[in-house]
Amino acid sequence: MFESAELGHSVYKSAYDKELPALREALLNAQFDMETSKKFPVIILIAGLDGAGKSATANTLNEWMDPRFIQTHGTDAPSDEELERPHMWRFWRQLPPKGRIGIFDGSWYAWPIFERAAGRIKNPKFDQALEEVRRFEQMLIDEGAVILKFWMHLSRLAQKRRLKKLESDPLTRWRVTERDWRHFELYDTFQEVSERALRRTSTAEAPWIQVEAVDSRYQKLMVGKTLLEQIRLRLNRPAPQPEIIQAAAALPDLDGRNILKSLDLSQKLGRPDYERELEKYQGRLNLLTRHKAFWDHNVVMVFEGVDAAGKGGAIRRITQAIDARLCHITPIAAPSEEERAQPYLWRFWRNLPRRGRLAIFDRSWYGRVLVERVEGFCSEADWMRAYGEINDFEEQIHNSGGIILKFWLSISQEEQLRRFELRRDSAFKRFKITDDDWRNRSKWDSYEAAICAMLERTSTEIAPWTLVESEDKYFGRIKILRTLCEGIEARL
Amino acid sequence: MFESAELGHSVYKSAYDKELPALREALLNAQFDMETSKKFPVIILIAGLDGAGKSATANTLNEWMDPRFIQTHGTDAPSDEELERPHMWRFWRQLPPKGRIGIFDGSWYAWPIFERAAGRIKNPKFDQALEEVRRFEQMLIDEGAVILKFWMHLSRLAQKRRLKKLESDPLTRWRVTERDWRHFELYDTFQEVSERALRRTSTAEAPWIQVEAVDSRYQKLMVGKTLLEQIRLRLNRPAPQPEIIQAAAALPDLDGRNILKSLDLSQKLGRPDYERELEKYQGRLNLLTRHKAFWDHNVVMVFEGVDAAGKGGAIRRITQAIDARLCHITPIAAPSEEERAQPYLWRFWRNLPRRGRLAIFDRSWYGRVLVERVEGFCSEADWMRAYGEINDFEEQIHNSGGIILKFWLSISQEEQLRRFELRRDSAFKRFKITDDDWRNRSKWDSYEAAICAMLERTSTEIAPWTLVESEDKYFGRIKILRTLCEGIEARL
Repeated sequence: MFESAELGHSVYKSAYDKELPALREALLNAQFDMETSKKFPVIILIAGLDGAGKSATANTLNEWMDPRFIQTHGTDAPSDEELERPHMWRFWRQLPPKGRIGIFDGSWYAWPIFERAAGRIKNPKFDQALEEVRRFEQMLIDEGAVILKFWMHLSRLAQKRRLKKLESDPLTRWRVTERDWRHFELYDTFQEVSERALRRTSTAEAPWIQVEAVDSRYQKLMVGKTLLEQIRLRLNRPAPQPEIIQAAAALPDLDGRNILKSLDLSQKLGRPDYERELEKYQGRLNLLTRHKAFWDHNVVMVFEGVDAAGKGGAIRRITQAIDARLCHITPIAAPSEEERAQPYLWRFWRNLPRRGRLAIFDRSWYGRVLVERVEGFCSEADWMRAYGEINDFEEQIHNSGGIILKFWLSISQEEQLRRFELRRDSAFKRFKITDDDWRNRSKWDSYEAAICAMLERTSTEIAPWTLVESEDKYFGRIKILRTLCEGIEARL
Repeated sequence: MFESAELGHSVYKSAYDKELPALREALLNAQFDMETSKKFPVIILIAGLDGAGKSATANTLNEWMDPRFIQTHGTDAPSDEELERPHMWRFWRQLPPKGRIGIFDGSWYAWPIFERAAGRIKNPKFDQALEEVRRFEQMLIDEGAVILKFWMHLSRLAQKRRLKKLESDPLTRWRVTERDWRHFELYDTFQEVSERALRRTSTAEAPWIQVEAVDSRYQKLMVGKTLLEQIRLRLNRPAPQPEIIQAAAALPDLDGRNILKSLDLSQKLGRPDYERELEKYQGRLNLLTRHKAFWDHNVVMVFEGVDAAGKGGAIRRITQAIDARLCHITPIAAPSEEERAQPYLWRFWRNLPRRGRLAIFDRSWYGRVLVERVEGFCSEADWMRAYGEINDFEEQIHNSGGIILKFWLSISQEEQLRRFELRRDSAFKRFKITDDDWRNRSKWDSYEAAICAMLERTSTEIAPWTLVESEDKYFGRIKILRTLCEGIEARL
């Protein structure tokens, strides 16, 4: 696979010096146009062997361009903050916003390749990890990113020569350590593992670009020119046509039944029962959050439901029971400017809790397949792919010890009207009702179809939805508290 | 995940009888339009629990439509022919051509789900298998297919009731066996495994469609109406815009070097040496094909190279050494009508050898990224995705015991001209030179870029390319024979 990167590619100094000024100017201009248009981020991965000039390349790009608009990330050991979250969390934090360039020296490939080369995982697990990476990159591309993956290559002989040369010079001897030679002995294993990684993750839209790393002028020019060309291509690309997704059409409705209509909304709980149960479950929840095993986990709660279904009230009954320092509520409204410059899942990733903590999302990533779908804020292709992206997201939370509980609060159309009128007429609840609420209400049927599709496609074995009959607030709140306690207990 | 398919969906007999005639007529019309336009195949998967009406559904579709244009496949135990080839071979054989409908009762999901439910594989291997399936379906979609995946669902209770009911009637008692009850005990395991499978393979373009299987009228109408709608949608879809692939642009050429130019074409072998070596390697090859361990493997040889590079001569030196009954040569020219109605890889799949056999492809699937790319016979997006598809294809051959040897025969432009002129002027070789050859020759540089990209992206650790310096025919032939012998020996 690496044959083409072992040909002794090189560029004469005179040619290099002649080309460089124009290239740097063009790169700066391209960067300026990117920054102005704010249409897409560029994500540059620099991977490959130790000693193949990875960090030198990153530094060169920073030198050639305006470093204020470039973020460069190494792969240091993860921080304790990072260790307590899904493996990909650190990379989500580091994603460049639209208009900017992010350089990853190492990146999401480092860990799987290293684990496989060290023999700590076998091919099935390795492929699983590579597939996670492939899906992640596909999502970035679908969200508009340009991804450039450079693989810096040295032949066995070339690497040996380089190490020897560094060692023989008193000025550079310190750069060659025991560890470098130990790694060198793994050369063949590392190549074999890398070939598999490259083969499985070289896609049409984000192929690997192999760069021979013997001659640094060649290496730098190659990276610089490729980068320039790709930014220009993307700037000039016409806006994509909205795709027609074959299978997106709603399924035929044959008998008028659906899961929402099947709920028994007449279920009630009397005040005295409610108060007794409330105390019981709040106490149980409090104990659970102080359980020793709880510190290996975290809880991610999602609250969705039509307007006025009682999300706020239910959330308060939970937070009342927990130490406020352990629990963070993220209310989801329109995204901030910073959030709009990122993939839509970014603002949820940034709010994932550490171990031993609870996160409550008052509305959530499901907005993508609900309001954004119904109101046409995103294309059909966008919300259709979102189901899979969301399932991937939740699987990563689950795999890192997260306990996911998703509540859909359901009320009837009549009850909603009653609550809306109450809010409108009550002085201290008036802020809770807006024109938007009335407008959403008029689209009840479209929302119902979207909700049913969401429940069907995202109620998974690792993160099932709980449907909460909330016509009676007491009944709904207790069902939520009970489900929450049982969900945590099942995992501890 | 299956909540929406446990609601007791049903359709009254009167409503069913009223709808049916119009639906059947519309389905027949749609089928006729499909058959006439020959633009795309429809692939219907019917999966789910035993006893959930899978075969009844398949039979109904055959009854409602014109069965001459429908092929229905069950998942019987694989034949010995099938066992000796990659797992997916049987499904490739069964793919419907454009214009037709193929119904798979069981399909490529049956094996992984069954193996996982029986505990014979764990999640990483299961995910690997599902990922193979996902890639396969993506390829079918990219090649134009409509894929409809129906999951027939019964709740635990509903399945128990159904089995009891069948048992209690003397007329249907025979349908319930020991095995059915044994499977029923695995219900929960099977559901859990199925949920994982559905979650990981429900994509935007081929989502799973869950159908509650309690009421057979509901079930049939649901499948029939969905099928009708999807065929109509596809018939009315405008021809897709050619996509612009971000990363497809050729990499910058900085120093004029490439892997083809780096070959030392001056390498020669004298006649006496050639004859001695020829005899040696032909003998060794013959012994290898009669080795006991050879019967667990097969050999797939690919010959590519510019026109007049000596492919035919090299192939003859191989076949001379082998029992002709063991070896099959597939010369690749323009595809037949039947082949054009299938994904481009289909005609290669159909020619994969059984165990203990050798297959020689004189030109191959690499035409996709060579002639089809250069001549513009397929779009940029098509040949860009082909690298990955080809690697997947070869991996499946490799994993089922195949030994893949790929030879690129290289000669200089001058040598090609000399051979062309020789052919033109020689009476008995004149048939070997056509106008096409002269035209291809004029595109030497475009071909060179395509060849280099091909070598870089498809020379993998499981199926590396061998570059053969063929300026001197003797040298080239011996290199091929030696590589072939060593390749087989390494695997036995």
